[in-house]
Amino acid sequence: MKKFDVLIIGAGAAGLTTGIYTARANLKTGIVEKSAPGGKLVNISQIENWVGDSFVEGPDLAIRMWEHSKNSGVENFYGNVLKIHHTKNIVETDFGNIQYKYLIIATGTSEKIPHEILNIKKFDQKGVSYCAICDGPLYKNEKVAVIGGGDSAFEESIYLSSFVKKVKIFVRNKIRANKALQSEVKSRKNIEILLKTKIKEIHGNKKVTHIIDNKEKKHNLKAIFPYIGLKPNTSFISQKEILDENGFIKVDEMMKTKIPNIFGIGDVLNKKVRQLTTAAADGTIAAKYIVNIAK
Amino acid sequence: MKKFDVLIIGAGAAGLTTGIYTARANLKTGIVEKSAPGGKLVNISQIENWVGDSFVEGPDLAIRMWEHSKNSGVENFYGNVLKIHHTKNIVETDFGNIQYKYLIIATGTSEKIPHEILNIKKFDQKGVSYCAICDGPLYKNEKVAVIGGGDSAFEESIYLSSFVKKVKIFVRNKIRANKALQSEVKSRKNIEILLKTKIKEIHGNKKVTHIIDNKEKKHNLKAIFPYIGLKPNTSFISQKEILDENGFIKVDEMMKTKIPNIFGIGDVLNKKVRQLTTAAADGTIAAKYIVNIAK
Repeated sequence: MKKFDVLIIGAGAAGLTTGIYTARANLKTGIVEKSAPGGKLVNISQIENWVGDSFVEGPDLAIRMWEHSKNSGVENFYGNVLKIHHTKNIVETDFGNIQYKYLIIATGTSEKIPHEILNIKKFDQKGVSYCAICDGPLYKNEKVAVIGGGDSAFEESIYLSSFVKKVKIFVRNKIRANKALQSEVKSRKNIEILLKTKIKEIHGNKKVTHIIDNKEKKHNLKAIFPYIGLKPNTSFISQKEILDENGFIKVDEMMKTKIPNIFGIGDVLNKKVRQLTTAAADGTIAAKYIVNIAK
Repeated sequence: MKKFDVLIIGAGAAGLTTGIYTARANLKTGIVEKSAPGGKLVNISQIENWVGDSFVEGPDLAIRMWEHSKNSGVENFYGNVLKIHHTKNIVETDFGNIQYKYLIIATGTSEKIPHEILNIKKFDQKGVSYCAICDGPLYKNEKVAVIGGGDSAFEESIYLSSFVKKVKIFVRNKIRANKALQSEVKSRKNIEILLKTKIKEIHGNKKVTHIIDNKEKKHNLKAIFPYIGLKPNTSFISQKEILDENGFIKVDEMMKTKIPNIFGIGDVLNKKVRQLTTAAADGTIAAKYIVNIAK
């Protein structure tokens, strides 16, 4: 069985930062990631607030952080974590069990699914997508819908508007996006905001052809991008005592959960600000604590 | 009189990060810095834990962060802040008064001065230095002293040992440096650790020639680098209600002090982990809060 001093679940900015610190302090460190390293970075086109880089592409920064962790001595594994057996200090994955001294959960969040929309699951990846940067380019010169009234919905609409024919933003309640994003959206002639309008049904054959809204109006469009909020990636955690009522991880100021030797860092925490810098800081704080007690 | 939505005192990683966020959100943002932009970065030779850069020189990262803030629209001023007049929302500097809506204090820390050593002030910058990377190269092939038992003292000793003839580390109490640093120090043949030994007197003519320790032993050496801990740069703050008993700034989870519209971020806070990533995160959190209430 593989054994690590520090085992990290999730290779986003938070997890990679912890790995860099603990590996450099000579603690044997491993990271398990289920998809591409970099976490949400992989889905962000332009990053302008990673201090020291006036402009960087998300996937490029993801690779830089991942290379940095490898250069520091972190070992990487691809696979899914199925369960934590905390009384045995073991994590069960689909490629075998791994033993840890310290476990760091850095699994981040995913976009919420608007389950109330008819056929939302049926057309998943057949027109319904939760990643505009990944799938948007498939709909060049087509009409598409975005669902949501927050910063993410408006940011992704701006991104899509530069190459699709038309973006309709379905704002279910009210607009919460910041002023700068609002004025940018209004300046784009191919973005239309539909206030208090909900998508009721999605229709098509193999792929989406049109939707019906709550006013029974038909809209011909080829894709739907829901950005209605985030849910924590914690369904594999059976230790509910470390989660809040929405499934986010609760920690103290040193990133410790209620279970000894299990830490939470990054977007998966129940906290107010979720940014690259705050994820990296969480990773740093957990690592500093572990390095101090392990030495 | 100059007027800003957001006025930041201190252009280190924390202050520059806030500036990048608030300027990008169209808030008129200014930074006052008394020396070189980058804060402590300027005094660090090798940085290996700024995520995404496996290796970067401190001054290079400082310039990158500063350029980033300028590209985002932040205005920079050089000078000293003399006083905060918080009831008038005015900061008094040696180049005039500046009005603010939100004030961010990001002034960091300085090395403590070991006042008990005879002539420590007299030989300041004449052999006594608080910045090994700035002044170390003046003492190539000479004998030098470092004071302290923590990470900083050991890191700077390793740096100095690569070009001076000999480094004597005067550890006043016990060694607190981490294990990796301890073993690196032990591997360097030109570093000697003197346990429970204090420098009592510094002697010389125009420059340092020798010191006397608490065992009345004379050591011929040319420079003394004290690394005995940090003090906050808050002496210009007359609003003592926002400081703790050691002069560090107290804030809540959104970086707010007890005085409305005054925030503290970065190393100047009374907190446990002081790293680049945590400074940037503090800056992000304050900025996010201000952008939300200002919009």
